Amino acid sequence: MRYAVLGTGEVGRTLGGRLAELGHEVTLGSRSKDNPTALEWARGAGAGAQAGTFAEAASSAEVVVVAVGGRVALMALEAAGAENLDGKVVVDVSNPMAFEDGELRLSPVESDSVGEQIQRAFPRARVVKTLNTVNCKVMVDPSLVPGEHQIFVCGADASAKEQVSGLLGEFGWPPHRVLDLGGIRSARSVEMLLPLWLDLLRNLGHAEFNIEVRRGH
Amino acid sequence: MRYAVLGTGEVGRTLGGRLAELGHEVTLGSRSKDNPTALEWARGAGAGAQAGTFAEAASSAEVVVVAVGGRVALMALEAAGAENLDGKVVVDVSNPMAFEDGELRLSPVESDSVGEQIQRAFPRARVVKTLNTVNCKVMVDPSLVPGEHQIFVCGADASAKEQVSGLLGEFGWPPHRVLDLGGIRSARSVEMLLPLWLDLLRNLGHAEFNIEVRRGH
Repeated sequence: MRYAVLGTGEVGRTLGGRLAELGHEVTLGSRSKDNPTALEWARGAGAGAQAGTFAEAASSAEVVVVAVGGRVALMALEAAGAENLDGKVVVDVSNPMAFEDGELRLSPVESDSVGEQIQRAFPRARVVKTLNTVNCKVMVDPSLVPGEHQIFVCGADASAKEQVSGLLGEFGWPPHRVLDLGGIRSARSVEMLLPLWLDLLRNLGHAEFNIEVRRGH
Repeated sequence: MRYAVLGTGEVGRTLGGRLAELGHEVTLGSRSKDNPTALEWARGAGAGAQAGTFAEAASSAEVVVVAVGGRVALMALEAAGAENLDGKVVVDVSNPMAFEDGELRLSPVESDSVGEQIQRAFPRARVVKTLNTVNCKVMVDPSLVPGEHQIFVCGADASAKEQVSGLLGEFGWPPHRVLDLGGIRSARSVEMLLPLWLDLLRNLGHAEFNIEVRRGH
């Protein structure tokens, strides 16, 4: 498959690197054509790896992964171009977090989410929210954490969620550990996990953890 | 111990009932002295069980449990009286949720929490947020859900958290399954779990579930 990974931070490079290792063609997208981080990533990530602008990455891709910060996700996708998202699966792994005066803040929160913002702004994209609830190393290697812990998917389009579940399977998440929460509105629920995730990070002292939903029946 | 359980809904009656079964003295507190639900509960809950006003319940108690809805928690505690909370452990199990136009809304959220509101309003109370992340049947019988799933505690006062951990132990939560998230500010994190909890309730079709934090090391 041909993937665009928008964002050259640790999340984008980790996801893009693993996709390239799996044999996919990956373009790491950024604002400018000559982003040094993206170029260095492409040199090290093998034959299928390229760097480009958001629009170059998205135009050639079958699947677009949003790996920028949640607060700039719409900006990155507008730069990618609505015509380059038309009908495509858009995988949103972002969290709309920022530190303001030393305090963690989420925006949007509770009455909206980045997943919903993207779906509203690009109604012909097939948006799936997933992976935002774990560290990027765990995203691409869930065996770092023991147990039958799960990953959530949310989105309106069942076939897009099925395709994303296949991708999650390539990363090491078997189907029974992919929990479909429902429509894209549930992006609110998974984005609102971030404060707990940060509390656990502080308390455990590392990011190699996840939650497992246990059920009585 | 002498407990006040404020609130005559399912959460209050379940917590109060289990506390009475465990041999504690429990007064179920409500707005009025002659609340029929509270009186009926007291008749069925054994020798140590009584019904009373919020103030009557709190004045005689060593520990006060806030089991009303999160949006009316401050009102119930004001009715209980600040002088009846002085120096006492106040266990807040509430969630500030309401359905507005058919939509779930949380308020406060993200920049504040009920736990913090209570601690600010009653600075001499020793507030511990806990148990709000599971259904009330699971609160008092965690064995309904298999696995080493956990319960969170948040609060400024370490000795109050230790006392609450003892209470949680009586309910069936052993110490290694009580996760101390830190100060009362972390009440934000656990209150923000509610939307995910409701999504899981809808998807699983029942409330006998909980999350287990799994860690790589």
